[in-house]
Amino acid sequence: MIDNPKRTPISELGEFGLIKHLTHKIKLKHKSSMMGVGDDAALIDNGDLVTVVSGDMLIEGTHFDLMYVPLKHLGYKAVVVNVSDILAMNAKPEQMIVSVAVSSRFPVEAMEELYDGIYAAANVYNVDIVGGDTTSSNLGLVLSITAVGTARKEDLVYRSGARENDLLCVSGDLGGAYMGLQLLEREKAVFQEHPEIQPDLDGKDYILERQLKPEARQDVIEMFGKLELKPTSMIDISDGLSSEAFHLCEASGLGCALYEEKIPIDPTTHAAALDFNIDPTVCALSGGEDYELLFTISPSDYEKVKGSVHFTVIGHMLDEASGKQLITKGGQSIALKAQGWSSFSTEQ
Amino acid sequence: MIDNPKRTPISELGEFGLIKHLTHKIKLKHKSSMMGVGDDAALIDNGDLVTVVSGDMLIEGTHFDLMYVPLKHLGYKAVVVNVSDILAMNAKPEQMIVSVAVSSRFPVEAMEELYDGIYAAANVYNVDIVGGDTTSSNLGLVLSITAVGTARKEDLVYRSGARENDLLCVSGDLGGAYMGLQLLEREKAVFQEHPEIQPDLDGKDYILERQLKPEARQDVIEMFGKLELKPTSMIDISDGLSSEAFHLCEASGLGCALYEEKIPIDPTTHAAALDFNIDPTVCALSGGEDYELLFTISPSDYEKVKGSVHFTVIGHMLDEASGKQLITKGGQSIALKAQGWSSFSTEQ
Repeated sequence: MIDNPKRTPISELGEFGLIKHLTHKIKLKHKSSMMGVGDDAALIDNGDLVTVVSGDMLIEGTHFDLMYVPLKHLGYKAVVVNVSDILAMNAKPEQMIVSVAVSSRFPVEAMEELYDGIYAAANVYNVDIVGGDTTSSNLGLVLSITAVGTARKEDLVYRSGARENDLLCVSGDLGGAYMGLQLLEREKAVFQEHPEIQPDLDGKDYILERQLKPEARQDVIEMFGKLELKPTSMIDISDGLSSEAFHLCEASGLGCALYEEKIPIDPTTHAAALDFNIDPTVCALSGGEDYELLFTISPSDYEKVKGSVHFTVIGHMLDEASGKQLITKGGQSIALKAQGWSSFSTEQ
Repeated sequence: MIDNPKRTPISELGEFGLIKHLTHKIKLKHKSSMMGVGDDAALIDNGDLVTVVSGDMLIEGTHFDLMYVPLKHLGYKAVVVNVSDILAMNAKPEQMIVSVAVSSRFPVEAMEELYDGIYAAANVYNVDIVGGDTTSSNLGLVLSITAVGTARKEDLVYRSGARENDLLCVSGDLGGAYMGLQLLEREKAVFQEHPEIQPDLDGKDYILERQLKPEARQDVIEMFGKLELKPTSMIDISDGLSSEAFHLCEASGLGCALYEEKIPIDPTTHAAALDFNIDPTVCALSGGEDYELLFTISPSDYEKVKGSVHFTVIGHMLDEASGKQLITKGGQSIALKAQGWSSFSTEQ
């Protein structure tokens, strides 16, 4: 099938490297193509209003495990992930197109559960489902969602807008979704060895919910409006703080200093991390799937976020030559690593 | 995993039934949500201009077989399928978002081939690739493409606009893609039994190309512009003439009379069908994947299409009570059946 004698494994480039490799030659031809590959969503210019479009695919076995993810939660999360990408442009999600590929091992009732979750989230985020498709798949369950939003041109926030000395802020707390996943994976392993043992998930509701029913921070975008605060750059945290901070730095041509002691971590996440012998900071930096917003603001806007329970200032932007630094609790400066999920190296 | 005691097999509803069942409760909330589920694409109102969005997913094993579909052709076709949906609204495709899930059995070079095909088609159809994603999948190759187009509101053509006595027309010829597929399937079976036998595809270029490298009829939409012809309703033929004629009738609340002898079938398609002991008319009615346009025009526009080599008048619209009729070559009227691919009944 593939005659090309050269076979470079995808893992050599990694997920980000592969997409960069495949898309670097693209040249945009239409005036309406305001922005292409390289931010949270694509932008289509309609004059005063911009249409913001983002697509995401969720694949059984890669993005979810039906052994512990109920279909209703899966549907809900699929919507959240896409809404989050639109919000990260400071835009308002309004429409959604849902395509599902499913094998006949799923009965109609299972599809109803999945769609119940999709509709519940569409309701919460006030999004219309305007299109979609179902098709068969003998590979497993695949969900593909395209979210469409609107923004006034002057309201859009890009990854590339950060300036030196801007404050680096994050909404909510981090690492919970990752610890929720660890917990579910452990219970799955226990169940497979000893089906008679009941799962012990007491007091772990918070991290389980962070994994199974995450929320996109529409409230944060609304707060920005009320505070008359326009971030200088923004991204949503799907791949872990470290990787997202890298994206903001690279897109803005800057470095950053990120203070370990400032990273907001919930006590439940902290306790679970210690229980699993994982450094809680590592959960926040590399865990991902928190769907919080990472953004920079001008130092002159500091008063607007100061004392808020919703935002934490975790660092500031530096010039490019200073690099991306993590300042540890001990005061040491170490280089941040962009990790992300790098799902290509772990798969079969 | 699924506790619900009721298990209705998806095949009981079929592909169209399932999507209807899952989406019938949707109510649109946003003023900008001009149209949702039920036509070739979703419509988002931006004032004078309408953004047209369509998503499609192609799954290995369901929609393509990598044993005989080269990756470059697959990429090309994935673009064509989506461009065709936008054209079927009489809109202009301008942007595209491409997501690919791939397992590590594919080297980087294979991804390059796939994207070469995608870029080649994007070039032919003058579409910008503005976003995308690659992710890993241990299920196989999955392609998800979202196409975005623009139209002036008054230019849009819906499935629902046909009126009684309108002429039913089709572009190009039908059934070729289906016969191409039969041929490839036969050669695959031969190869699996006797790998030493060289495939015999001489003189079959036309139907192979219809299957492997179909084209969307952008030229037809441009001709409409030049002819100052606005169809009253339109749909693209992805599932076979019969199923698409059904959609136009149902959406417009009408019946139709379709004349078997008028259905345009290429001599190569005709010969291959006879060779396979298949009725050529059945190929055209149920084959699908031709990506021609099926449309209705007002009888007063007949002069504009008369004698054109690009269009064929194959019937006319009737009132709903008259039903959907196929008038056979022998002059008999039989009921049309909506078949489509019904991929749910053939899968594992």
